[in-house]
Amino acid sequence: MADEVSYAKQGRMALIRLERPDALNALTLPMIAAVKAYAEAAERDPDVIAICITGAGRGFCAGIDMSILVDSTSSGAPAAEPETVRARPALFSFLLDISKPVLAAINGTVAGGGFVLAMMCDMRFMAESATISTIFAKRGLIAEHGMSWLLPRLIGLSRALDVLWSSRKIDATEALRLGLVDRVVPDDALIATVQAYVDDLAAHCAPQSLAHMKAQLLRHLQTDFDTAAHEADRLMATVLRHPDATEGAMSFVERRPPRFAPWTGPTR
Amino acid sequence: MADEVSYAKQGRMALIRLERPDALNALTLPMIAAVKAYAEAAERDPDVIAICITGAGRGFCAGIDMSILVDSTSSGAPAAEPETVRARPALFSFLLDISKPVLAAINGTVAGGGFVLAMMCDMRFMAESATISTIFAKRGLIAEHGMSWLLPRLIGLSRALDVLWSSRKIDATEALRLGLVDRVVPDDALIATVQAYVDDLAAHCAPQSLAHMKAQLLRHLQTDFDTAAHEADRLMATVLRHPDATEGAMSFVERRPPRFAPWTGPTR
Amino acid sequence: MADEVSYAKQGRMALIRLERPDALNALTLPMIAAVKAYAEAAERDPDVIAICITGAGRGFCAGIDMSILVDSTSSGAPAAEPETVRARPALFSFLLDISKPVLAAINGTVAGGGFVLAMMCDMRFMAESATISTIFAKRGLIAEHGMSWLLPRLIGLSRALDVLWSSRKIDATEALRLGLVDRVVPDDALIATVQAYVDDLAAHCAPQSLAHMKAQLLRHLQTDFDTAAHEADRLMATVLRHPDATEGAMSFVERRPPRFAPWTGPTR
Repeated sequence: MADEVSYAKQGRMALIRLERPDALNALTLPMIAAVKAYAEAAERDPDVIAICITGAGRGFCAGIDMSILVDSTSSGAPAAEPETVRARPALFSFLLDISKPVLAAINGTVAGGGFVLAMMCDMRFMAESATISTIFAKRGLIAEHGMSWLLPRLIGLSRALDVLWSSRKIDATEALRLGLVDRVVPDDALIATVQAYVDDLAAHCAPQSLAHMKAQLLRHLQTDFDTAAHEADRLMATVLRHPDATEGAMSFVERRPPRFAPWTGPTR
Repeated sequence: MADEVSYAKQGRMALIRLERPDALNALTLPMIAAVKAYAEAAERDPDVIAICITGAGRGFCAGIDMSILVDSTSSGAPAAEPETVRARPALFSFLLDISKPVLAAINGTVAGGGFVLAMMCDMRFMAESATISTIFAKRGLIAEHGMSWLLPRLIGLSRALDVLWSSRKIDATEALRLGLVDRVVPDDALIATVQAYVDDLAAHCAPQSLAHMKAQLLRHLQTDFDTAAHEADRLMATVLRHPDATEGAMSFVERRPPRFAPWTGPTR
Repeated sequence: MADEVSYAKQGRMALIRLERPDALNALTLPMIAAVKAYAEAAERDPDVIAICITGAGRGFCAGIDMSILVDSTSSGAPAAEPETVRARPALFSFLLDISKPVLAAINGTVAGGGFVLAMMCDMRFMAESATISTIFAKRGLIAEHGMSWLLPRLIGLSRALDVLWSSRKIDATEALRLGLVDRVVPDDALIATVQAYVDDLAAHCAPQSLAHMKAQLLRHLQTDFDTAAHEADRLMATVLRHPDATEGAMSFVERRPPRFAPWTGPTR
C-alpha cells in the first residue's frame, strides 16, 4: 500500500484519506491503486457499513499529479494505470461497483482528477470553505473519465456544461444549489457529520438494502421503465425470502432496533 | 368499491381520497384496486381535467398495510395483487398511463408504499407540516416498484440514493429543495391550491394537450433525441388538423377564453 | 439575410439579435434561416469563442409569428421551413450541432417558439424582469420540437410537466429555482454578464475543449456509462496528441496565460 493513503475504521465507517497534503493530495498511480484496494477491503469487511473518502490538509484532491499529466501529454497516450485499476473504463469508476455507500468528505480544494474522484462517490459532504473546479478545459482536455455521462444525470445538462466549460472555482453555497454536493457542513464538523450519517445507516438500515439500491439506481439509469420494474419485482421476491425482510417487519412491529445481516459484497 | 377510498368531483377536479385515517391510510388490496378504478373513471369523464389524490386525517399514506407485508415476508413472495392492477409492473404504475394530470396532495405522513403512490403522481403539492420517508431500507427491502428508475429522473442520482438510503423523515422545505415535491402549501390551503391549479388548467389549456404532453415526456425519457423529435413532428401534424389547434390560435387572436374539446382518454 | 436579425462581434463573442421588437421578435421563416446562417458563420470564425442570442426591445422572442401558425393550422400541416433549416428534426435543433457554446440572453418575454429557441441554447442568462412561458397547451398543441426530450433532462420530469402544462408566466426567481435558467442578472447588466462569461472562457479555456464537451454531453445522454467512458478514453488519446494539451499543462506549470488553438468547427 502507498504510504500516501491511510485507512482507518471509525465505528462502522471506513475512512480512506489521501495523505499527500503538501501536493494538495495530487494523485500518483500507487495512490489510485491504494484507494481501490482499501475500498475493496472495506466492502469485504462485515463491520463496515459505508466508506468515507477525504483528504489530509487544505486540499481534498487537486487532480492527477502533474508529472503524470506531463508524461502523458508528451507521450501522446493516457497515463498508464495498473491493470487492476481498469475493470471498467474511467478513473475511479471502480467506486461505482463498490456495493456500499461511498461518501466524499470534501475538506478543501477539488480539481481535475479530484473532481472525478468526488463525483464517482455516491454522495458528497462539503466543508464550507472548500471549492470545486473541473479544470479540464483550462488544460485543453475533455469531459474525462465518464464525467460526460455522470454529470448531467446528477445536475442536469446545462448546469453540467456550465461547470465543465467555465472551470471556475465553485464555492459550497453554489455547489449545493447546483446539486454538485448533498450537504454543506462547517469545516470542523465535516468528518463528524459523515460519521453521524453512517451511524444512522448502521442503526436503522439493512446493509444489503443499501447495496441493492446502489446497483439498481446505477443500472436503471440505462434501462426503460418496464425493464427496471420487472427487475425490481424479481429482486423483491428474492429479498423477501431473506431473513432481513422478516427482521425489518418484526423490529418495526416490536418497536425495537433491527439486527440485520452484515454485507460483505455480492457473490461474484 | 372499497369504503376506504372516496371519490368526489369538485369543479373540474376529481378528488380521490384514502379514507382509513386510523391507520394513516395504509393500503389494503381493495384500496389499491379502488384507486385504479376511480382514476380510470376520472380519465373517461369528460368533465374531469385533472385528478387529485390525497388522504384523510393526519396521514397521506403510511404504506402497504403491515398485515400484507408480514404475509408476504413469511410466504416469500410479493403480496398478491388483483390481476387488473398489473397491466404493467410496479405498484401504482397505472397512474403513469392515466392520460390526465394526476396531482398528489400530500396532507401528512408519506412512507413506504405511500412514497410509491406519491412519486407515481405527476406532480406533488405538499402541506407544510407533512413529512416524506422511503422506509424501504429500514425494512430490509429495495428500491421497489419502479422507484429505482423514476427517482433519479426526478431529482438526480445522488439525491435519490440519499433519500432511499437514509430513510429519514424529510420535511417540506427539504423536499422542495431536493425536487421531491413541486409546491409547499400551508396545511389548510392544500386542497384549495391544487383546485386552483386545476381550475387554471381548465380555463386555459386544451385537455388533449395535457394528455399528449404526459405521454410524450414519459416515453421520451426512453428514446434518443431524434426519435423524440420525429415523433413530435408526426404528432404535431395530427394535432394541427384537430379543431383545438384552430381554437387555440383563434381564441388568442380574438382575445377570448378558449373552448377546447373534452378528453376522455386515448382511443385504445 | 433577413433585416430582422442582426449580427455583431463584441470581442470574442458573436451576438445574434432578433430585431423585430414591435412584434416581440416573433419569428418568421427568414428570421429562423438567418439565425442558422449567423450561428454557422460564428462557428467557422476563429475569433469567436461563444455565441450569444438575444432580442431587441421588450421581448426575447414571443414565438412563431402568428401568421405562420394560423396558416399551418388551416392547412393541417406544420409550417414549411427552408430545407436548410432541417438537417435534423425540431426547430432550432441546429444549435445543438453548433460546436461552440450558445448562450441565451433572455432580455424579456419568452413564449412558444421563443421557449424552444431559449431551451435549445446551451445555457440561459435571464434578466430579472423577464418571463418565460411555454404556451403550447394554451394553443391546443403539444411538447413541440424536441422539448419533450430535452426539458426533463434539464429540470427533471415533474418540473417539466408543470412548466408545459400550466403554461403560466414564470419569473426569473422561479426560473432559476427550477433550473430553467442558469443565471439571473439585473436587466441593464444582461449582455455585459454574458460578455464577461465569454471573455473568461476566451482567457482560460481551450476552444476545442468546449466543443468536445458539448458533443460528449449531448451524445452521452443517449448511451450507457461504459460506452461513454470508452469514447472519452479514445477521444482523450487524440486530444493528448494535440498541442493544446501540452499548452494547457505548460501554461499551468509556467503560471502564464495559455495560448490555445482557435476552433472553426469539426472536420466534416
